[in-house]
Amino acid sequence: MLEILPLTGLPEVRPGDDLAALLGDAVERAGGLEDEDVMVVAQKAVSKAEGRVEQTDDVVAAILREARAVRRRRGGLVIAETKHGFVCASAGVDLSNAPGEGWIVLLPEDPDASAARIRAALGERFGREPAVIVSDSFGRAWRQGTTDIAIGVAGMRPLLDLRGEHDSRGYQLVSTMIAVADELAGAAELVMGKANGVPAAIVRGYAVPPGDGSASELVMPPERDLFP
Amino acid sequence: MLEILPLTGLPEVRPGDDLAALLGDAVERAGGLEDEDVMVVAQKAVSKAEGRVEQTDDVVAAILREARAVRRRRGGLVIAETKHGFVCASAGVDLSNAPGEGWIVLLPEDPDASAARIRAALGERFGREPAVIVSDSFGRAWRQGTTDIAIGVAGMRPLLDLRGEHDSRGYQLVSTMIAVADELAGAAELVMGKANGVPAAIVRGYAVPPGDGSASELVMPPERDLFP
Repeated sequence: MLEILPLTGLPEVRPGDDLAALLGDAVERAGGLEDEDVMVVAQKAVSKAEGRVEQTDDVVAAILREARAVRRRRGGLVIAETKHGFVCASAGVDLSNAPGEGWIVLLPEDPDASAARIRAALGERFGREPAVIVSDSFGRAWRQGTTDIAIGVAGMRPLLDLRGEHDSRGYQLVSTMIAVADELAGAAELVMGKANGVPAAIVRGYAVPPGDGSASELVMPPERDLFP
Repeated sequence: MLEILPLTGLPEVRPGDDLAALLGDAVERAGGLEDEDVMVVAQKAVSKAEGRVEQTDDVVAAILREARAVRRRRGGLVIAETKHGFVCASAGVDLSNAPGEGWIVLLPEDPDASAARIRAALGERFGREPAVIVSDSFGRAWRQGTTDIAIGVAGMRPLLDLRGEHDSRGYQLVSTMIAVADELAGAAELVMGKANGVPAAIVRGYAVPPGDGSASELVMPPERDLFP
């Protein structure tokens, strides 16, 4: 059985805040960390703590600056590839839950490093290091609505690689990789929500694929990208 | 807090099996249903129970027959639109966890109806009707690995529509719809796995968007599809 616990009671995060300390306080209120805990932290909180916010009257210019390439554009909608390689609306630039009118929030420069810093700080405080995922809400091709996915990971591999394993009938699963970091991020979103100020959650009881992974493993390499 | 419980001990599902009864037995072993339970059932089990399996020596012909349109083709990989409107590999035709060598499993004809039948049968047996999701593992554009998503729903709306709601700062969320049915399906996959014969799970404690929804709401309408 898995449990998904919202981490509540965090203040509005501001540039320069020690997010790992705020998360640690929330973990303490929730009773501490356990083995096989995965902490999922909303990108918005990470970006704010890291000062990745700015005041602008030209959001489109900011989007184009944050983008490595624009994939599609229709009206106000820009589907862009970020510098990290993620393909998403507005290159991750967001006006909602920003620090104020006229402010935007940008993606962290290096979300894996953000996750690793949080993981290290929690490890120091609690004596065990959870896997950490930095999550964001992305739209998808062909499907309506957003789901939360992983843009940064630490202390886990984001993909569960079943290639070479066998199904219950003995058939070899030749092409099966499961994006468990994305599924964990989406699961956490169910208790975090968009409007209720819960910037993090713990997924408890999931044995992550072990290793020192990166969310870049989740990015489809250009030579295999059929929808450039 | 959410809990995700695997439903274990089901036999290998065969054509003609009463899947709802098998699921009900597993629910009983797990202690029964509670309010705010969402049952997620793997498409493979649903398809097998409904006889959506066949023996063939021409898988490609089966894929092209199941497809309404082929979106991309590279080597053995066919990205196709199914008759339901879902865009996925092989139009949902699958060789893994099939009934035997040379057998394939097709998507249910009407996964919403499959979900509704399971919901009704469980409601009759337990006196409360859970929301039901039929899930399948889909690849994504631009990202590696599959995540489980909803191809059929009953007793819920698949999208949480936050348009018109406000964020913690009072900013109106103008374009936010969350594909919670997909996030629920992905969350359930974390305890179901591909290789270990757990064809269903319960997500406990999530208040689904109420209503009589359809997974077709998750399909991007053609006029908004930027990646045809």
